[in-house]
Amino acid sequence: MPHAFGIRRIVLDVLKPHTPRLTDLAMMVATDESVLGVNISLKEVDQSTESIAITIEGDDLRFDVIKEILEQAGAVIHSIDQVVAGKRFVEEVALQPENT
Amino acid sequence: MPHAFGIRRIVLDVLKPHTPRLTDLAMMVATDESVLGVNISLKEVDQSTESIAITIEGDDLRFDVIKEILEQAGAVIHSIDQVVAGKRFVEEVALQPENT
Amino acid sequence: MPHAFGIRRIVLDVLKPHTPRLTDLAMMVATDESVLGVNISLKEVDQSTESIAITIEGDDLRFDVIKEILEQAGAVIHSIDQVVAGKRFVEEVALQPENT
Amino acid sequence: MPHAFGIRRIVLDVLKPHTPRLTDLAMMVATDESVLGVNISLKEVDQSTESIAITIEGDDLRFDVIKEILEQAGAVIHSIDQVVAGKRFVEEVALQPENT
Amino acid sequence: MPHAFGIRRIVLDVLKPHTPRLTDLAMMVATDESVLGVNISLKEVDQSTESIAITIEGDDLRFDVIKEILEQAGAVIHSIDQVVAGKRFVEEVALQPENT
Amino acid sequence: MPHAFGIRRIVLDVLKPHTPRLTDLAMMVATDESVLGVNISLKEVDQSTESIAITIEGDDLRFDVIKEILEQAGAVIHSIDQVVAGKRFVEEVALQPENT
Amino acid sequence: MPHAFGIRRIVLDVLKPHTPRLTDLAMMVATDESVLGVNISLKEVDQSTESIAITIEGDDLRFDVIKEILEQAGAVIHSIDQVVAGKRFVEEVALQPENT
Repeated sequence: MPHAFGIRRIVLDVLKPHTPRLTDLAMMVATDESVLGVNISLKEVDQSTESIAITIEGDDLRFDVIKEILEQAGAVIHSIDQVVAGKRFVEEVALQPENT
Repeated sequence: MPHAFGIRRIVLDVLKPHTPRLTDLAMMVATDESVLGVNISLKEVDQSTESIAITIEGDDLRFDVIKEILEQAGAVIHSIDQVVAGKRFVEEVALQPENT
Repeated sequence: MPHAFGIRRIVLDVLKPHTPRLTDLAMMVATDESVLGVNISLKEVDQSTESIAITIEGDDLRFDVIKEILEQAGAVIHSIDQVVAGKRFVEEVALQPENT
Repeated sequence: MPHAFGIRRIVLDVLKPHTPRLTDLAMMVATDESVLGVNISLKEVDQSTESIAITIEGDDLRFDVIKEILEQAGAVIHSIDQVVAGKRFVEEVALQPENT
Repeated sequence: MPHAFGIRRIVLDVLKPHTPRLTDLAMMVATDESVLGVNISLKEVDQSTESIAITIEGDDLRFDVIKEILEQAGAVIHSIDQVVAGKRFVEEVALQPENT
Repeated sequence: MPHAFGIRRIVLDVLKPHTPRLTDLAMMVATDESVLGVNISLKEVDQSTESIAITIEGDDLRFDVIKEILEQAGAVIHSIDQVVAGKRFVEEVALQPENT
Repeated sequence: MPHAFGIRRIVLDVLKPHTPRLTDLAMMVATDESVLGVNISLKEVDQSTESIAITIEGDDLRFDVIKEILEQAGAVIHSIDQVVAGKRFVEEVALQPENT
């Protein structure tokens, strides 16, 4: 299957230990050359873990490389929450609630 | 019926098994040359299935080809939630609630 | 009455059988040459019918032609929810709630 | 009183019989040459009447002419909900709720 | 005190009798040459009075002149709800609620 | 400490007597030459006092001068609610609520 | 690990004593030459402490320097709430709630 258009955005729901901290984890992810930019937002803090949302953008992201970077940092991917692929960057459409 | 203007956006409510994962499914959909871009967002995760919203944009989308790609991936279309067609890209209008 | 300025947008609340599906109905509406673009959004699904919102834009829309296309597809117009007419495209104003 | 700057927008809360329908009423309002554009949105439907919001924009709107057009269509103005006048088009300011 | 920079916007909470109607009151306010534009929005209607929000913009608004125009129309200013002054037009900042 | 970059915005929660009114207080604050623009919004009115939010913008605001102007007007600063400083104007980030 | 792309934004949840006040703390943070701009917003005030959100932007922010500046001011970092890194500035994506 020829990948004419690559993955442009991946949003991940991730569980990580307190170390490495967000600034270090963001730099680790950014070192993969397929990554153009990364946003990590803290969602919940527990005693030994924290829940984070990672948004990664690029032109042709390599999911397996990103997954390996996260695992080497001790982080676990709970779910892939959004993926954007193709030449045109498509955002999710907010459907209007039914008019009552 | 001459199709002077084609389908520009399709939003689908889809049920899929956990495999293939979102990154792979997005690339499969993007391989159809009528697809300019695709956004897949996770909505709900169950034991053996997950519910996703797929937003596809192009200039003349071929629904049957897209449907076949999804079915070959083991996914089932629950409903078509939005379609945009024609020369001008028309968004749904948010009607204001009644002033009380 | 000379129609110096035409109808620019019509929003319709429509009830339709499951067939034709949204992609086909959108293409049917788009074949009327007064229609520049159309958005159809699914609102509710029942056993044999579905409720949809149709937003149609053009420079001089012909309501009767659109109505006939919908009726030939087995769809019934419940109500006209919004109409825009004239040289300047006017959106509905969101009135601020009273300051308490 | 010299009217250096005219009325630019009028928002009306109107009660009308089911006939004429919104597309026809919009065209009637648009025939007044002071009207550059009009938006009519349905708010509530009762057995023999319907409640609508009419937003009219122009450079020097003539309220009395608009009122007459509506009355000839059997519609009654319940209230004038917003008026904009003058050289600069001023929108209503959304005051922030008090910080608690 | 030299007024290097003048008042740019005044938002008023006003109580008025039903007459004059909003279109006439807006034109009265707009006749003051310091007023570049005015927006009047209806907030509440009582038996003999109505509550309105008046937003006035200009480069060097004269509050006392505006107040006199309103009083001559039988309107009473309940409160001044917002004032913007100075060379740069500053909007109120929406402070984010505390992250919990 | 060399102040390479100055204060660009200060948001204040202030309690003041009814006099001076908002238009006069805004002009008093605007007379400080470090102030490029000011927005004063009314939050709450009590019998002898009113609570206001003051947003001041400039390139190198002098807090002590602003504080003195407010105190000479009989106003008391309850809290400094937001400060922006530096070459780049940074807005507060709205953190997304946790996806459930 | 070569830091090809640096930290672009850090959002911090911080507890501080009432002194230094926000204007002074913002200037202290801005003196670090890696900081292009800073926004400090007050979240909660207690008897001897206050909770603040600090948003810092730059091209290659040095977290340890910023942390030291805050600690010298008597402030304690509760959590790092968001980090952006890389060539492209990536904002957190607002995932749409599930369509019901």
